[in-house]
Amino acid sequence: MGHNSFGSAFTITTFGESHGEGLGVIIDGVESGFKLDTQAIQAEMARRRPGGNPLGTERDEKDQLVILSGMYEGLTTGTPLAMVLYNTNQRPYDYSNLKDVFRPGHADWSFYKKFGVRDIRGGGRSSGRETSARVAAGAVAKQILAQHGIRIFAGTVQVGSVVATKRNWDECDNALTCPDKEASLAMASLIEEVRLDQDSIGGIIECRITGLPPGLGEPVFGKLQALLSHAVMSIGAIKGIQFGDGFSCATMRGSAFNDQRTSEGFLSNHSGGILGGISSGQEVILQAAVRPTASIGKSQKTVDKENVTKDLVIEGRHDPCICPRAVVVVEAMVAITLLDLWYTAYGRQR
Amino acid sequence: MGHNSFGSAFTITTFGESHGEGLGVIIDGVESGFKLDTQAIQAEMARRRPGGNPLGTERDEKDQLVILSGMYEGLTTGTPLAMVLYNTNQRPYDYSNLKDVFRPGHADWSFYKKFGVRDIRGGGRSSGRETSARVAAGAVAKQILAQHGIRIFAGTVQVGSVVATKRNWDECDNALTCPDKEASLAMASLIEEVRLDQDSIGGIIECRITGLPPGLGEPVFGKLQALLSHAVMSIGAIKGIQFGDGFSCATMRGSAFNDQRTSEGFLSNHSGGILGGISSGQEVILQAAVRPTASIGKSQKTVDKENVTKDLVIEGRHDPCICPRAVVVVEAMVAITLLDLWYTAYGRQR
Amino acid sequence: MGHNSFGSAFTITTFGESHGEGLGVIIDGVESGFKLDTQAIQAEMARRRPGGNPLGTERDEKDQLVILSGMYEGLTTGTPLAMVLYNTNQRPYDYSNLKDVFRPGHADWSFYKKFGVRDIRGGGRSSGRETSARVAAGAVAKQILAQHGIRIFAGTVQVGSVVATKRNWDECDNALTCPDKEASLAMASLIEEVRLDQDSIGGIIECRITGLPPGLGEPVFGKLQALLSHAVMSIGAIKGIQFGDGFSCATMRGSAFNDQRTSEGFLSNHSGGILGGISSGQEVILQAAVRPTASIGKSQKTVDKENVTKDLVIEGRHDPCICPRAVVVVEAMVAITLLDLWYTAYGRQR
Amino acid sequence: MGHNSFGSAFTITTFGESHGEGLGVIIDGVESGFKLDTQAIQAEMARRRPGGNPLGTERDEKDQLVILSGMYEGLTTGTPLAMVLYNTNQRPYDYSNLKDVFRPGHADWSFYKKFGVRDIRGGGRSSGRETSARVAAGAVAKQILAQHGIRIFAGTVQVGSVVATKRNWDECDNALTCPDKEASLAMASLIEEVRLDQDSIGGIIECRITGLPPGLGEPVFGKLQALLSHAVMSIGAIKGIQFGDGFSCATMRGSAFNDQRTSEGFLSNHSGGILGGISSGQEVILQAAVRPTASIGKSQKTVDKENVTKDLVIEGRHDPCICPRAVVVVEAMVAITLLDLWYTAYGRQR
Repeated sequence: MGHNSFGSAFTITTFGESHGEGLGVIIDGVESGFKLDTQAIQAEMARRRPGGNPLGTERDEKDQLVILSGMYEGLTTGTPLAMVLYNTNQRPYDYSNLKDVFRPGHADWSFYKKFGVRDIRGGGRSSGRETSARVAAGAVAKQILAQHGIRIFAGTVQVGSVVATKRNWDECDNALTCPDKEASLAMASLIEEVRLDQDSIGGIIECRITGLPPGLGEPVFGKLQALLSHAVMSIGAIKGIQFGDGFSCATMRGSAFNDQRTSEGFLSNHSGGILGGISSGQEVILQAAVRPTASIGKSQKTVDKENVTKDLVIEGRHDPCICPRAVVVVEAMVAITLLDLWYTAYGRQR
Repeated sequence: MGHNSFGSAFTITTFGESHGEGLGVIIDGVESGFKLDTQAIQAEMARRRPGGNPLGTERDEKDQLVILSGMYEGLTTGTPLAMVLYNTNQRPYDYSNLKDVFRPGHADWSFYKKFGVRDIRGGGRSSGRETSARVAAGAVAKQILAQHGIRIFAGTVQVGSVVATKRNWDECDNALTCPDKEASLAMASLIEEVRLDQDSIGGIIECRITGLPPGLGEPVFGKLQALLSHAVMSIGAIKGIQFGDGFSCATMRGSAFNDQRTSEGFLSNHSGGILGGISSGQEVILQAAVRPTASIGKSQKTVDKENVTKDLVIEGRHDPCICPRAVVVVEAMVAITLLDLWYTAYGRQR
Repeated sequence: MGHNSFGSAFTITTFGESHGEGLGVIIDGVESGFKLDTQAIQAEMARRRPGGNPLGTERDEKDQLVILSGMYEGLTTGTPLAMVLYNTNQRPYDYSNLKDVFRPGHADWSFYKKFGVRDIRGGGRSSGRETSARVAAGAVAKQILAQHGIRIFAGTVQVGSVVATKRNWDECDNALTCPDKEASLAMASLIEEVRLDQDSIGGIIECRITGLPPGLGEPVFGKLQALLSHAVMSIGAIKGIQFGDGFSCATMRGSAFNDQRTSEGFLSNHSGGILGGISSGQEVILQAAVRPTASIGKSQKTVDKENVTKDLVIEGRHDPCICPRAVVVVEAMVAITLLDLWYTAYGRQR
Repeated sequence: MGHNSFGSAFTITTFGESHGEGLGVIIDGVESGFKLDTQAIQAEMARRRPGGNPLGTERDEKDQLVILSGMYEGLTTGTPLAMVLYNTNQRPYDYSNLKDVFRPGHADWSFYKKFGVRDIRGGGRSSGRETSARVAAGAVAKQILAQHGIRIFAGTVQVGSVVATKRNWDECDNALTCPDKEASLAMASLIEEVRLDQDSIGGIIECRITGLPPGLGEPVFGKLQALLSHAVMSIGAIKGIQFGDGFSCATMRGSAFNDQRTSEGFLSNHSGGILGGISSGQEVILQAAVRPTASIGKSQKTVDKENVTKDLVIEGRHDPCICPRAVVVVEAMVAITLLDLWYTAYGRQR
């Protein structure tokens, strides 16, 4: 299977470049007869789109999805669901200054080394815009999972050194989807400060899955944490992932880390809801490290195709912190992974 | 593809339970005509086997591999390489006390919930012994990669709060494969202390890949970090993974994180050798968080199949810290992933 | 992987219904830097489209492909090639008479039983129009294979009881792509006769591959004939496939069937260019049996959703024989299969 | 996925050479808690093994399966089922005369061209003995399918020009599993005649599936006939496959071929139980063309590695007709394909 596909029982295949004709996703394996809420999908798209977030880039893209196939009279038909996002309102950016240089922190260098050619317009296939196709697919997966009581929600829990200490998931209707209202204000201030400084800043996104029954995940290479890691780590900006106590486990003893159980239930959740790669029935908790946005206004050293050193200043409006917009992408990849495992276990036909 | 397989161009399929007849691996996609060094494979097995490490369990298992197919007169034939490890010297443990209870931190609970039945003998398929098949396959992959100048080596860089500050990879011939001789002594002391306390301790393993040319990794779901995360996170004891600066990137600014470049080469390696999911030609660096061993001698709360609370004491000799033996497993999964990407890019036929 | 995808190293994923918004294909695994001849692709589309053939339906569909991604400045970029065909000129057919009945010989019955819902407009996903996406992908594969000297060509060699006895492949510029000019005239007459009779007729398509080097095909489940059979038998109208002497081998002796060889080369080609599932370097020859078109003007018995017997007359203009238009579909599936095996063997990166 | 694996939800991976240490199969995706009848598996092995059939080779191989994993206390555990057949009683054949020549009709030439090396002992991986692993896996699939009322049975319906005209499936307890007792006697005579003539003969195997509910098969590349064709055509000796009326459809009109339906059910079964690639609920019928055995005692022309023409006489005892032993292999591949589709549709977890 090509590496632009993900999943085996519920498979998404994405395509498209940032500034080409359009991008989108083909979803293969959707159950038939499901009443799809297309407005809810569009609402998810809005969470990711540029201009949809006060802390993000000022570029405004509508991200209007068009469904080409797989539905009839409001119901899924069981055939591939094709969803496309046309790059209609692309302004004629002048990319000529980027034509022969490799932007630091971007995929420019490695794409050129791998493919020999590269689409210089806005990063082409390596642009973050590629994730919009994942959000569309994730929105479908979420709806189907919801009917089984499974809910996925993520939020920003760290930006720079501002750390959210609370987990009030009902109060995260802020630009960062941060479950700690006070921390979210400090995060927003920090992001504005960084923006004015022509720089960017990293952060951490936390994602939780509730309502997941025990028994999802497939030994030994389809362990729940392995597939979720594949899914989340395939998002360009993510540099690390951890489950439950994660890297903290390095300093813990087994007697503290093991989740003991009594007839009342588990006494703790250090493992993050996964035992032996299979969901335990507890809440699944994971965190992803988000690197600072690669595009910054400061001057940087780079080289051109002839390997001559250049000083590069990247123009344009960029997200000083990608967390606000990446939250929904993490949710999407988690949802896609879970529905894949669900269909693997229970099938999609009745 | 079943979830006991991993890889697409170089595919491993593992099987076997801890105390069944045997376990092993089928490798599909090995190039033909390669002179396989079977002693080198056996040497890798020795790095993982119980009793092979002074800091590990005192159980002594020979782990003698038998090759059933895929070789003729010392050369690979291009057909599946089948390698089996027979569970010959299994002592007749008495598992009856574990028959109806679920060991905390183990897969017992989730396997039972998923499959309805479970092999109670030593954890069955969820035993760490399963990783021996990966080590065998990884040893094959390493040899093939080596002819292209690609080298993979891992070591323990943290146990509890003892952190290795040096990276003297030439001096890590200690029980922990730790690149900091002094730290390795403190780690060993800590592990002994924990052992005497009937407890266990976690740690961090670092893995490096040198000699990797630019251009390996496949956008967008086959990003190098995504596949390596899938591979490494499928090892039972691993709870987190990070590349380059990893979780530290959360507090960094783009101007500090971006790896700038001059005609002399890259000025830093915060990204860990991967740009846009494709190798950049720099050293690839990743770290994996290792949880404290689940089996401990201390009494723990658990339940039986009738959900009655029980106090459980696990008998037997266990590894107080799994890092020493997990190092080679991490290397193996990394090697398998890289060779898969190599064959995807360049094929396996001349 | 979902079953709307085909191939592993060169993967196509198709989507779309006959009368939905559009249909198309995502090709994952195209090598980068290839100068794609888009006019040649469009010319292949013309070979399949309704109205493109004097012996076919009189419906005229333009089948204008739009490339959404994967190309930049005329070259492939190595990222997914997305090609879409919009269903622009669909006339507002009245399908209400087909809404509750199942057309004999069509997928109506089985789709309804499987999915519970079905897109009644023109057969939906089960329409022959689905194959246009395959033709587009096949046209890309053909161009890439051509640079390695591999050529694929198919033609009609039987319609009803009219059998082509010659194989003048240079003279098959007739509506049936038949390599026997005289037979092609008799075939055309028969098809017209059948059309006037409101009926349809079956036939046989032969496909040949020249320039294929020895060594393509993967034991044991990726045998060249196995993958080609999967590919060709996935075309809706095909009911059988055979290689070389095919079903005739049932009456042959080994001494007659075996292709002996001298220093001058093979003395015969009964096996059809494949030995042990691997190309031998000889011409590959296969034949596919094409069923008579399911849609006919004659009255037929069927049932409705309430299982009440109905007499059904299908209105509209249909192909009395699908061979003329299926020829290019067979070629396309063969080309896709070969390029997949080529990349598996030799990779797609230099 | 490697090409020594088949299936996606129920995946088999086979390995092993004719005269290596052993061969076998790993089955990934078996449901847990299934009470496996190992004697029934062994009985299927006996149907295929050399010496198991009076019309076959006189070589006698026990083909005793050993189950290495995936079972506990008689039940499947849901983990990979590994079954191995050791090549214990291999007599020290002298293959030196075959070392440098390529046997006509065998894979010798193409394997050598593809892999550069080849295991000359008995054909290595390309030996028909490879199919024993399929029979073992098929025997497992059959048992699981049987609990859903699905039954698969095949028989020889043609040998040379002797054609079975009856379909008395209850009376095929003859060496050919032929459903026409009289024809079976003529077939047996012909096979003996051919054997005495140091030659071999081809035939046709028919396979039927009863009890298959409507709804199995996945549009568009996972059509039931496409997957079954892939499965059956991957058996070395098969040169063609057809469903229902098969190649006869070339001469039929749509009005005769379409299976009409009334409230009483379908009026015919020309399509062979498949509509649009999905089972219709009718009996599925397919036929496979079996080539005459490649190994014959007559002198044949061939070349050696230096391309010098040689006269080759193959010693040893071979099957003059492979149909008797291939019947169970066809059944096995059909069963494996059906269970894969069953799990895809309905899952394997409750």
